[in-house]
Amino acid sequence: MTISREIRLKSRPEGMPTADNFELATTELPAPAQGELLVKNHYMSVDPYMRGRMIDRQSYLPPFQMNEPLEGGSVGEVVESNNENFKPGDMLLGMLGWREYFVSNGKGLMRFEPGDAPLQAFLGTLGMTGLTAYSGLLEVGKPKEGQTVFVSAASGAVGSIVSQIAKIKGCFVVGSAGSDEKAAWLKDVAGVDEAFNYKAVDNLFKTVNQLCPNGIDIYFENVGGKHLEAALEYMNPQGRLVMCGMISQYNATKPPQGPSNLDYVVAKQLTMQGFLVGNYFHKMQQFQADMGKWIAEGRITWKETVREGIENAPEAFIGLFKGQNFGKMIVKL
Amino acid sequence: MTISREIRLKSRPEGMPTADNFELATTELPAPAQGELLVKNHYMSVDPYMRGRMIDRQSYLPPFQMNEPLEGGSVGEVVESNNENFKPGDMLLGMLGWREYFVSNGKGLMRFEPGDAPLQAFLGTLGMTGLTAYSGLLEVGKPKEGQTVFVSAASGAVGSIVSQIAKIKGCFVVGSAGSDEKAAWLKDVAGVDEAFNYKAVDNLFKTVNQLCPNGIDIYFENVGGKHLEAALEYMNPQGRLVMCGMISQYNATKPPQGPSNLDYVVAKQLTMQGFLVGNYFHKMQQFQADMGKWIAEGRITWKETVREGIENAPEAFIGLFKGQNFGKMIVKL
Repeated sequence: MTISREIRLKSRPEGMPTADNFELATTELPAPAQGELLVKNHYMSVDPYMRGRMIDRQSYLPPFQMNEPLEGGSVGEVVESNNENFKPGDMLLGMLGWREYFVSNGKGLMRFEPGDAPLQAFLGTLGMTGLTAYSGLLEVGKPKEGQTVFVSAASGAVGSIVSQIAKIKGCFVVGSAGSDEKAAWLKDVAGVDEAFNYKAVDNLFKTVNQLCPNGIDIYFENVGGKHLEAALEYMNPQGRLVMCGMISQYNATKPPQGPSNLDYVVAKQLTMQGFLVGNYFHKMQQFQADMGKWIAEGRITWKETVREGIENAPEAFIGLFKGQNFGKMIVKL
Repeated sequence: MTISREIRLKSRPEGMPTADNFELATTELPAPAQGELLVKNHYMSVDPYMRGRMIDRQSYLPPFQMNEPLEGGSVGEVVESNNENFKPGDMLLGMLGWREYFVSNGKGLMRFEPGDAPLQAFLGTLGMTGLTAYSGLLEVGKPKEGQTVFVSAASGAVGSIVSQIAKIKGCFVVGSAGSDEKAAWLKDVAGVDEAFNYKAVDNLFKTVNQLCPNGIDIYFENVGGKHLEAALEYMNPQGRLVMCGMISQYNATKPPQGPSNLDYVVAKQLTMQGFLVGNYFHKMQQFQADMGKWIAEGRITWKETVREGIENAPEAFIGLFKGQNFGKMIVKL
């Protein structure tokens, strides 16, 4: 018998989530039956998109169920196995989530070899987050050398990788972030051309205009709201907007106002394309090869914000919407 | 010496244009010099996009200049020629606009053979309007047989051709129009599957939902505002929004509110693409061949609203924003 703690959704948040929306529950797991395995999670992924699954509506992923462990990315290790495909010590990636241990028949779990990389990187730069940045920028944005790429939430998990891949591809990269420290990291460590703290500028439009003297060819959207409006204003003709997320709107309690200058899509012949990483799993191998090489060459770096203990996962999640993460938000178990 | 009347922009409209924004001026044209020709216009094209050029801002086309004849599409005939490339009786298409006669060195004028088609059709179905519909739907929308295509301003010059090409391509076509008469024409004459008068429905969202039981795969945008919001609501995953125009916003005096549900672009992985017919001139020949065949087969029909006399051109233009046109708005000289 294994004692495991897990995070459940207790009530659906309205607006900004609060601790009350979550419950820390303790369960007793049976020993794995024939064909099953027992997995101990080491790290959990904490991601903004999970907010969407807390709403009771059909979307690209079904809504989270009440009083069930939250589904979320995790890195775990096989502790005990009665399944011939897995043996103790195997490292696993999966979406089985926000709990310390679980029993599984192995479906949906992917074995991987961590090599020299830190385990939690397989949730971030070497995992879904990295593939999101890679496929979004390269497959949807299609950057060309010398183009200007504007990235919102540029010090975030996805944004920071997008920014650095865009530099590798020879682009002029401008990033928006939510603190002076994050903006400084973007310029000094991640090596983007221009970065700013959007909370400290008088006029977002003016700043974007000044820092993108040749206009914007590709906008990588993580934020929505005024950032999208500013990007539309300075997009170059036939520019592309890669629509990855709109974190500023996830907790809206009334319908958010869309950009007032959306008519530029016509006048400038823009393409605004939404994408989900799930459609780019076929790029995984190429992504891992490229990313491994770039990391080895010292061309990609990243930040993590690590909270310890499953009991701190709700707080970590809520912190995403308050800019408390610097790079990828992770919970270490 | 030829006396010609022309329409000039007297002041830039704020909000809905009024007769006061225009001036009917009389000019005396000199005889054409060596290399020049004298052209008499027969028909002028009256188009919503011209509203954008009345604003003093840089866009895909330069703003109209004050106290100059408005540039706009016209069909004319060579009256006198001292240019070896043109001879009296030649029929010409050009953007030289809103005047009865003009002298030209021939630049930017295209000679054409009208054959059996009415002259004014070369401003509409057989001209720019038709190419806009054809390239927007086929090159940007990329319809497949069996898909649902929702068209706003579907009885308009562009919308009515889009709707019928979509039918030819085997799509389920739903059109929104601004009167019962227009909606009836769409169903009974143009042959779309469903059409409605948006001014008469209680709830645009409900109507769109009911008439598109399989969701929307392609939205052809001519209107903006609530139509765009309703389309976003019922778009199918990976659907395409062909952004041709947003007539509901052209006279806005304060920044219009964008769609509140733009986040569906991410969740449904939509592609929203603006386009201008100017980028599809290379499709002209293929367009003319296809369109000629479809018209001969009786598969494309169209409506025109014809005003007579250049003095009525401003009124015709203003009427576009009041839904006074049924199909293509034309001024006969």
